[in-house]
Amino acid sequence: MAPVHSDQEAAMATAIRVLAMDAVEAAKSGHPGAPMGMADVATVLFNRFMRIDPSDDKWPDRDRFVMSAGHGSMLVYAINHMLGYDDMGMDQLRAFRQLGSRTAGHPEYGHAKGIETTTGPLGQGISTAVGMALAERMMNARFGDDLVDHWTYVICGDGCLMEGISHEAIDFAGHQRLGRLIVLWDDNRITIDGGTGLSTSTDQQARFATSGWHVQAVDGHDREAVAAAITAARQDDRPSLIACRTVIGYGAPNKQGSHDVHGAPLGAAEIAAARAHLGWTYEPFALPQEILDSWRSVSARGAKARLAWQERLNRSPLKADVTASLTAPAAIQLRQAIAAFCQTLANDRPKVATRKSSEMALEVVNAVLPNTVGGSADLTGSNNTRTKGMTAVTAADRTGRYIHYGIREHGMAAAMNGIALHGGLIPYGGTFLAFSDYSRPAIRLGALMGVPVIHVMTHDSIGLGEDGPTHQPVEHVAALRAIPNVLVFRPADAIETAEAWEIALTAPRTPSVLCLSRQNLPTVRDAAPENLTRQGAYVLRDTDGPRDVTLIATGSEVELALAASDMLAGQGLRAAVVSAPCFELFAARPAEEREAVLGQAPRIGIEALIRQGWDGLFLRPGDGFIGMTGFGASAPAPELYRHFGITTDATAELANQLIRGGK
Amino acid sequence: MAPVHSDQEAAMATAIRVLAMDAVEAAKSGHPGAPMGMADVATVLFNRFMRIDPSDDKWPDRDRFVMSAGHGSMLVYAINHMLGYDDMGMDQLRAFRQLGSRTAGHPEYGHAKGIETTTGPLGQGISTAVGMALAERMMNARFGDDLVDHWTYVICGDGCLMEGISHEAIDFAGHQRLGRLIVLWDDNRITIDGGTGLSTSTDQQARFATSGWHVQAVDGHDREAVAAAITAARQDDRPSLIACRTVIGYGAPNKQGSHDVHGAPLGAAEIAAARAHLGWTYEPFALPQEILDSWRSVSARGAKARLAWQERLNRSPLKADVTASLTAPAAIQLRQAIAAFCQTLANDRPKVATRKSSEMALEVVNAVLPNTVGGSADLTGSNNTRTKGMTAVTAADRTGRYIHYGIREHGMAAAMNGIALHGGLIPYGGTFLAFSDYSRPAIRLGALMGVPVIHVMTHDSIGLGEDGPTHQPVEHVAALRAIPNVLVFRPADAIETAEAWEIALTAPRTPSVLCLSRQNLPTVRDAAPENLTRQGAYVLRDTDGPRDVTLIATGSEVELALAASDMLAGQGLRAAVVSAPCFELFAARPAEEREAVLGQAPRIGIEALIRQGWDGLFLRPGDGFIGMTGFGASAPAPELYRHFGITTDATAELANQLIRGGK
Repeated sequence: MAPVHSDQEAAMATAIRVLAMDAVEAAKSGHPGAPMGMADVATVLFNRFMRIDPSDDKWPDRDRFVMSAGHGSMLVYAINHMLGYDDMGMDQLRAFRQLGSRTAGHPEYGHAKGIETTTGPLGQGISTAVGMALAERMMNARFGDDLVDHWTYVICGDGCLMEGISHEAIDFAGHQRLGRLIVLWDDNRITIDGGTGLSTSTDQQARFATSGWHVQAVDGHDREAVAAAITAARQDDRPSLIACRTVIGYGAPNKQGSHDVHGAPLGAAEIAAARAHLGWTYEPFALPQEILDSWRSVSARGAKARLAWQERLNRSPLKADVTASLTAPAAIQLRQAIAAFCQTLANDRPKVATRKSSEMALEVVNAVLPNTVGGSADLTGSNNTRTKGMTAVTAADRTGRYIHYGIREHGMAAAMNGIALHGGLIPYGGTFLAFSDYSRPAIRLGALMGVPVIHVMTHDSIGLGEDGPTHQPVEHVAALRAIPNVLVFRPADAIETAEAWEIALTAPRTPSVLCLSRQNLPTVRDAAPENLTRQGAYVLRDTDGPRDVTLIATGSEVELALAASDMLAGQGLRAAVVSAPCFELFAARPAEEREAVLGQAPRIGIEALIRQGWDGLFLRPGDGFIGMTGFGASAPAPELYRHFGITTDATAELANQLIRGGK
Repeated sequence: MAPVHSDQEAAMATAIRVLAMDAVEAAKSGHPGAPMGMADVATVLFNRFMRIDPSDDKWPDRDRFVMSAGHGSMLVYAINHMLGYDDMGMDQLRAFRQLGSRTAGHPEYGHAKGIETTTGPLGQGISTAVGMALAERMMNARFGDDLVDHWTYVICGDGCLMEGISHEAIDFAGHQRLGRLIVLWDDNRITIDGGTGLSTSTDQQARFATSGWHVQAVDGHDREAVAAAITAARQDDRPSLIACRTVIGYGAPNKQGSHDVHGAPLGAAEIAAARAHLGWTYEPFALPQEILDSWRSVSARGAKARLAWQERLNRSPLKADVTASLTAPAAIQLRQAIAAFCQTLANDRPKVATRKSSEMALEVVNAVLPNTVGGSADLTGSNNTRTKGMTAVTAADRTGRYIHYGIREHGMAAAMNGIALHGGLIPYGGTFLAFSDYSRPAIRLGALMGVPVIHVMTHDSIGLGEDGPTHQPVEHVAALRAIPNVLVFRPADAIETAEAWEIALTAPRTPSVLCLSRQNLPTVRDAAPENLTRQGAYVLRDTDGPRDVTLIATGSEVELALAASDMLAGQGLRAAVVSAPCFELFAARPAEEREAVLGQAPRIGIEALIRQGWDGLFLRPGDGFIGMTGFGASAPAPELYRHFGITTDATAELANQLIRGGK
């Protein structure tokens, strides 16, 4: 299998080390330690095993490589340069960590080819890779070995394994028996503060074994041992950990093995010493042709494999299905199905919780889109994420469409990122909105990457009632709205919920969060020729004649706004009602359109959450807000609404005050 | 040791079961499964081991009990009622989960006596308990066995052990060899979605053993076995896991052992069947005197122990030190020290990063307050949290004041909650601000509890430069400001940093987050007779004559505001500068005071973060903002500021536009 071993392979590894130390030196910033320490392991992995084709970086059946220890980004850039990715010329390496370069401080998905996921926040890479490896097996179960047959390799460090999310990922991967996942642990026993002995004494090898992993340990600078371990890992049907005992900064003779090489340039003297030590006679950023040739032969092997795969695909009766799964969701069919469903809802006018509306919408969605994959962090019956006929994805049978993620909100969000990044499947998963705090780092990373994952977050306010303030989101919606490139929906009824699903499923580069009620809500909308939720906020009930006040509400509080409007009408006051299911979509509209929706009359925002995010977009000085100012409490929901003054009466009274104040 | 075993002890456990199922039934909501399943274990723990005195619920040397599986709150309420806590009358149990009752859906610290920490979000309890157990040993190292000699017991469920934070807690506790921590795992093999086999196959006992724990397994309904295991756990110097194999909902004959008993009332028929099955002949909420007497004897034992402790304390030469550690920080000395330090700074005018300013302030603080305990999630040299002479807290020597929390932001935050809840020590700990997302669930819980923990969050904007968008907070400050009862500081220089530390250390019931720069910042403030940061926002530079514009900035952008003010002065425009280090403190001031600070001229907010949170409090329609609208990038910091238009020029230009627009 392996075209080049021995001395030439050693030189391939040396090239990584030198490029890493030189680029960090040029940038005056960065992390030479991990690339130098893991250069041998990475070289063996790529030289003898990885099947990738830089000329088609999105080839679906490529192996995935995840640098979970993202600070070691120069390892990735050095390799991708030598492999010949056309966007990773030497100019990029020279411009490591500079504005406009593709060589960002940490590897960023979409920023350069050959980067499968963004890493840097520790633990995310390995947890995202679990999703990739699961997606591979699920796609394999659908399309067979001929078309789906690849591996997910991860390099991770001590930090990744100390982070809590690693536990969720490891437990889940072991349970799902993800044999296509191979983790190469950079066991250098160094953290930033010093030796790992400062803060941990867990036996990592034993730890992985207790979660059902295949575990080996090797000298990470013995390339034959590394190769043998990867071969053995591939032969075992469990996920594999290979503990690679390495010396951090290997090759820097005076600094290696110390935390001093972790995150700072080596300095000119040590670089010169390393060059001598490594027998490297070339100038910075210069590579001999024979080393380049060796790396290019890896790419050539991958190109050949890709062509063979393409031929198999072309001959396959499944070609159309494979292709469909890998392209964007069928937006037109989805629009038709959602529109028809909304018409039914407008006729039936169900009074159900939006978490139930979501399930109803999903029945439609999952029928139209065969490659959605649902799941929940052990709240299936509460999140209503499992539609009829969905069977569980298990180690024994991966044909299913429903994933029991376990009580692992963070791991679920990261795994969903990985499933979406892998391609072929559209993941959505549920938990309580209050626990979006647990999954937040992975939601943010998905937003940064632009991965269209759908987070179903139910029990979205004090409306959940008795479980009390630990479970009641008051600030979570504001906090999610704060993350760039996330669509946060808080639909008012079944129709808006269906519309939100349509938008979320067809947003190509944006994760979505659906905030859904526990409590029943009436149907407040009529069907419309277009998806009104896409406007972000729109006039749900206009007034006859000039408005006295505009009531702007989201989700469960739209019902309240309508009731207050009725009450005000009884007092001879004209209150328009604006439903605002998605702030981000509204903010993206031109100012004139927004002003036309909101009008010039006094405004009252109504949301059983904190006010942050309302001012500026909806509210002006002097406008009012009905909502929360602190944590909730434990009691039945209707009592809580009264207790916190989120009522029709309070709204009507505030409207009267504002109208009188304005006259 | 144990006054009552056998039949009477069995009846004590039955009383928990019956009270739990009756209270859940009355509430029509709640979780009978865990209290009924763990009633035997809890009864043995309290009856034979726990040393608490309900007449003095804050007795410092009491044992701590943490119900990490917080949904099983009725177990706590039932026990605390029977123990005789004076705020937990039967009326409270009847009012389980009702508005105004102390019997909230999940146990809430401060809401009823005898609740050591708020639980509900899974994994938090066990991780907070780790901090308690560490604090106990640290206090013991300071004051000796006579005065500090207690245990921390935890009941946790499968969910707690699946959550990632449990890994951080377990690894850290094993490394610190916290032998005073005993975790009783409710091993009922049931989760909400069904059997644990749906989502996990980790061997939990082996897992704990790999992290250095003492591990035992018992039948959780065999009280003698439970007692023997607790005794053995106390004799081992490692933290202990006791896997208690239980039947969820034990005692409900037709439903026990199934996930149906987890989180819903049993129903009248099953409750009647359970009464018959358990041989319980009493009405709902009625208890025979002999069972009450048995429980009260536990309290009597505790009261005796407390009196003995009090006598030892009274005789101890350490009494004054113990008392001082347990009372609020010495605010007057601290004020004097900070004022003197600020005077020095005003003279020296250092140009240092606020993370460095923080270290300088800590040198002063740690000298005045002997019971501060620093730490970092493996970023000591970056967070600058370790002052001179601070030695590490290790398993071998707990006299130190510095904790290497490891790469565990979430576990650190939870442990700090536990240290603060324990009493006697004032914890602060550092990480990068971007990773506040990791610790967020514990920060929120600290805010809900009102625990004065100080989170030192450095690298607080794109000003960190090359590490790029994964590490650059843009929305984190807004997201933290969204959490109720958190003080978020973003100081502009060394003086404001010192003032922020003073406020944070003396805030009795509020956690604080200090957002600190990586890059150097000049001293912009003069010393003042009072702590100006306490005003939240204040006029740093006023104008001669009427203001043309008010520039409002925080942290590193205050320097920029001053430079823009200079530039505008050169253009003949009068620009006042307001420094706004703490939005929450400013928001708490009367509207007239706020208006006086901000003035009527056009306003520009300047913060290298997103705008959310500025409108309403500082900005009006038409006012301007200089900041971020999306994720950052990887490049040297000065280039990023230019790239994103956060510059003196841009500020001055926007000011000109606003001034012209307003004229």
